[in-house]
Amino acid sequence: MMTTNDHVDVLVIGGGPGGTPAAMALGRAGKHVMLVEAGRGLGGTCLFEGCIPSKIFRETAARRHEIVRAGEFGLRLGSSDLPGIDWAAVQSRRDRILSGRAQGALAHTEAMPSLDVVFGRARLTGARTALVETPDMQRTVTFDRAILATGSVPASLPIPGAELPGVIDSTQLIEIDAIPRSMVLIGAGPIGVEMAQIFAMLGTRVTILEVADRILGPVDAVLAGRLEKRLVQDGIEVHTKATVASITGDRGSHVTTFSVGGKEMTAETEVVAIVAGRRPNVAGLGLENTQVLSDKNGVIVDDTLQTGEPGIYATGDLLGNPMFAHWATAQALAVARHLLGAPVEFPRPEHNSAVIFSYPEIGMVGLTEEAARAGGLDVGVSEYDYKGDARAQISGDADGLLRIVYAPDSRRVLGVHVLVEGAADLMGEAALAVRVGSTVEDLASTIHPHPTLTEAFGLAALAVGGRRRE
Amino acid sequence: MMTTNDHVDVLVIGGGPGGTPAAMALGRAGKHVMLVEAGRGLGGTCLFEGCIPSKIFRETAARRHEIVRAGEFGLRLGSSDLPGIDWAAVQSRRDRILSGRAQGALAHTEAMPSLDVVFGRARLTGARTALVETPDMQRTVTFDRAILATGSVPASLPIPGAELPGVIDSTQLIEIDAIPRSMVLIGAGPIGVEMAQIFAMLGTRVTILEVADRILGPVDAVLAGRLEKRLVQDGIEVHTKATVASITGDRGSHVTTFSVGGKEMTAETEVVAIVAGRRPNVAGLGLENTQVLSDKNGVIVDDTLQTGEPGIYATGDLLGNPMFAHWATAQALAVARHLLGAPVEFPRPEHNSAVIFSYPEIGMVGLTEEAARAGGLDVGVSEYDYKGDARAQISGDADGLLRIVYAPDSRRVLGVHVLVEGAADLMGEAALAVRVGSTVEDLASTIHPHPTLTEAFGLAALAVGGRRRE
Repeated sequence: MMTTNDHVDVLVIGGGPGGTPAAMALGRAGKHVMLVEAGRGLGGTCLFEGCIPSKIFRETAARRHEIVRAGEFGLRLGSSDLPGIDWAAVQSRRDRILSGRAQGALAHTEAMPSLDVVFGRARLTGARTALVETPDMQRTVTFDRAILATGSVPASLPIPGAELPGVIDSTQLIEIDAIPRSMVLIGAGPIGVEMAQIFAMLGTRVTILEVADRILGPVDAVLAGRLEKRLVQDGIEVHTKATVASITGDRGSHVTTFSVGGKEMTAETEVVAIVAGRRPNVAGLGLENTQVLSDKNGVIVDDTLQTGEPGIYATGDLLGNPMFAHWATAQALAVARHLLGAPVEFPRPEHNSAVIFSYPEIGMVGLTEEAARAGGLDVGVSEYDYKGDARAQISGDADGLLRIVYAPDSRRVLGVHVLVEGAADLMGEAALAVRVGSTVEDLASTIHPHPTLTEAFGLAALAVGGRRRE
Repeated sequence: MMTTNDHVDVLVIGGGPGGTPAAMALGRAGKHVMLVEAGRGLGGTCLFEGCIPSKIFRETAARRHEIVRAGEFGLRLGSSDLPGIDWAAVQSRRDRILSGRAQGALAHTEAMPSLDVVFGRARLTGARTALVETPDMQRTVTFDRAILATGSVPASLPIPGAELPGVIDSTQLIEIDAIPRSMVLIGAGPIGVEMAQIFAMLGTRVTILEVADRILGPVDAVLAGRLEKRLVQDGIEVHTKATVASITGDRGSHVTTFSVGGKEMTAETEVVAIVAGRRPNVAGLGLENTQVLSDKNGVIVDDTLQTGEPGIYATGDLLGNPMFAHWATAQALAVARHLLGAPVEFPRPEHNSAVIFSYPEIGMVGLTEEAARAGGLDVGVSEYDYKGDARAQISGDADGLLRIVYAPDSRRVLGVHVLVEGAADLMGEAALAVRVGSTVEDLASTIHPHPTLTEAFGLAALAVGGRRRE
């Protein structure tokens, strides 16, 4: 085993959305950067276990779902059978896209002479030193600055039987080698809801168990309520206020025992997946050798994302919720600018955007009505129902709703929440409006093209009425 | 025949996007309004002959196209045959959506006691009078103000044979009772390109003849060039710089003779459609009895959309290009506010948005690079190629491009031009950015959700580099 000593300007630990963009921005500026990634390529949870592969599955599932209803649009298929699924082909499509993206990211880093990518593990051994291990080498690395971006891992739940073979987490669900006939999903957060609909559209009989009184906790309650009805209509068994008592059985046949309102129930399924969120991945990072502090919510940072150890920063899932790739990237870019001495405004939670890739999608930016009122904030809400929308009627997806949350005094848009297939791509307008402080008058006077789903922004804003632009 | 005399505050002639929104805004404010519509319902060209029915056809065509490529996504269909098309079902879906929307609009107007909708024809007989005729009644209507919004009709071309039976225009193409085996489309503007792709996806062998040297004249040249290649790849025969000499033959079998670069060619097809734009519909409006002026581009108005006759306003297609429903609506709402004495900013062409519902779609807002340079304006352009985009790769639609046109000094976004399936719904962000004067820094610091097509806005803006937000 070779041993070397290196010094770098910046050590970045973690090659996902919270690390790679920072390493690249610093490398582009000529800083000597080492980027250490413990996984199989650059990309992190999002690329290998999260947003991307789940959306690849969703693409196939949604296309199948749409083929089934092709008759509504005047199309006749040659056979009345449901479209078959070649799961191996779906997996190989997934692998092709994933490796293409990881290689693309690596090629970008390789074009930067002052940026070294090391596939291995890094452990802090002091305030300015780390041990970086690869299969064939051990390096002691000293650094001026470090960025910790090791992301998160699936959270487990203290359920008897959770450790049984065949009881899986979200990462294993992405790697599942066949479409199960039946599945219990424990947890109705974004991952649980997305997976429930994907597998239901692929033909799995799905049961969701959620301990809270509704699905998708922090999401706008009206939209989450509509989506919950849709899940039930689509044949998914949804139990809220459900406490799981135990899981028994073996691979391929599990019994999940749970209670709802004191009543004990069981679900017998081929697969049980625990999708109860994720926890920051601090294990093995050597935080104990530094002044970096963390609690159960993750690493603790100040307004500039600096940890308790001056010069060591942290980004992304490692900081706890919200855990989103784009949020991590926004933080990574801000830290890089900060380290380069450039003026920087760190990303603010109230400007963040998010998409639940449910079917239809839910997109959201900024404050919900509930959060605003809970915070004692007086807000107005203007709604637009896609039932009457030209584009939604044409697509046959008219079961949607847009809600704009605004400040009655300043007329500023504080939040936008949308349930409609295509909501994801509407979030750019929502995020820009909230980011730059647009008013409802700005949205109302923006000329949205017809017929599109984005017209709803203008119409909902126009419906606010009252004071108008002078 | 009954004859009555009426006086109204505002007479609105034309119940399409340039008339109905104005009538409703005025009616909501308590003005006595008469809205006269000569067609079969409220909605105008957009609803009955244009954007809506063409998008309904596109929906079926695109779904068929996507079913054909389902194998790419791991789906197996029961039969290897192409999906059949039940054209009668497509037509009845079209009629259902159209009549639903027209009835919905009518119900809205009926809820306003001071707004009367009259289905008939209106003709100005003086500066403050009009004759309104319905099958069973003739009314002399006097008014304080009038809004002319009679839209446009398909333009004809002086081609020998253009008048033959079976040589049709865009309105007749929307009513076509069977999918033709083959078709010549004369004109490669938005209507020609949309129809070419729709019918090609439905199985028609399509030939496009365009007199200019490229398709989609005013559209960003890079995007139009990419789309033109796509048309050819998809099997459409595209002839630019093509001069049509004549059309011969009869219904069901036409020979179109045209020349390209001095070389004479012919195309033998079942249908020939002339889709060479539209012209303002001034016929029968009685303009000669007023001081309203018009030329070949349409009715002439001032900055407040007032015609040469004080108190008479005009909106929409009647004013010539650009002819878009959303543009007409923006004008209609502005005139209504103006008549109500409310503060109003009339819509500005540089804030307008548009979508070509090609496949993939082209969305655009504001200045093109070409128009800017032709006007002597120094602009920067930042591009984002969807080839590397996560969302586009997942959807299997990675052949797209986004171009942001910005002012190097002020850093303001002056135009956004996008070719990608889904571009239509991205135009809200583009239109808002241009409308409120966002800078590239505003777009770069907006947190776009991942993985979506809207991330491209942030990435293209970030790639501008240089000066950053302080």
